[in-house]
Amino acid sequence: METNIATATVITPEAFLAHWQGHRGLTRRIIEAFPEKELFTFSIGGMRTFAVLAMEMTDLANPGIDGIVTGEWREKYNMSHQTGEGMPETKEELLALWDETTAKIDRLWGQLDPQRFQEQTVAFGQWPGPVYGTLLYFVDNEIHHRGQGYVYLRALGIEPPAFWER
Amino acid sequence: METNIATATVITPEAFLAHWQGHRGLTRRIIEAFPEKELFTFSIGGMRTFAVLAMEMTDLANPGIDGIVTGEWREKYNMSHQTGEGMPETKEELLALWDETTAKIDRLWGQLDPQRFQEQTVAFGQWPGPVYGTLLYFVDNEIHHRGQGYVYLRALGIEPPAFWER
Repeated sequence: METNIATATVITPEAFLAHWQGHRGLTRRIIEAFPEKELFTFSIGGMRTFAVLAMEMTDLANPGIDGIVTGEWREKYNMSHQTGEGMPETKEELLALWDETTAKIDRLWGQLDPQRFQEQTVAFGQWPGPVYGTLLYFVDNEIHHRGQGYVYLRALGIEPPAFWER
Repeated sequence: METNIATATVITPEAFLAHWQGHRGLTRRIIEAFPEKELFTFSIGGMRTFAVLAMEMTDLANPGIDGIVTGEWREKYNMSHQTGEGMPETKEELLALWDETTAKIDRLWGQLDPQRFQEQTVAFGQWPGPVYGTLLYFVDNEIHHRGQGYVYLRALGIEPPAFWER
């Protein structure tokens, strides 16, 4: 097969899934590393708690993978990403939603049409762009907020898992 | 051209370059948002200053793009990413190296063989993996540490640029 720079593959769907799930595994370990109380209360500079940030990730990824696959976008959890209103109240519940989402991504990924990544979509009815861009945004947003969780953990005197261990 | 899930393109080389440079533009604005003194001195929980984190990004990306294109890996700046020893002493100098690196990535990207992304390499002689994995690591590492810079800025009472503006 001839490849050229305009259509060449930087990353295949299979590799992207492994990349995303590798990040999700690390983020799960960061959630676990927080003491229960601080997960829901600790903050720096008026920022959101790591529990709210983690639920934002879940609320992008879980209905997000439906939208990626089907093109139909809807919100999943009736909660506010700013105040955390309506969100889980325990680490266990938060991790259960995390794990349900991880399994759902694995399950639905196989239904993705290989040509889907280059199609246009309007993520959550609000953000237009190519499907690959939406997927990258999900991962980038997770890395961004997880990096903030690293600072919270360090400020709490807790050594976080290494960034490069997936 | 027939596409299948094993070889389909999630992101093309051209789109990946735009993605990476979009992140680099945002990180540059985060560097700029720090007051000169705090860029080189402020830290939370014993972590590195944002100047050292930003130079780590430069020291991955600048010799990194050479390694990505040619397969020959070497270190560029004679500095420690842990202590910051040997690094620039002003924001202006740090931004000049940033901009030099941005231009170099644009310049060398066009020399990339489209098949290169799936080849194996040993980044900086130490980290084996596919070339696309090394590229993703550069971007992920930048997002991760930049997210930490957001917390530093918030702790300093400075409103950072929005994450989604590239």
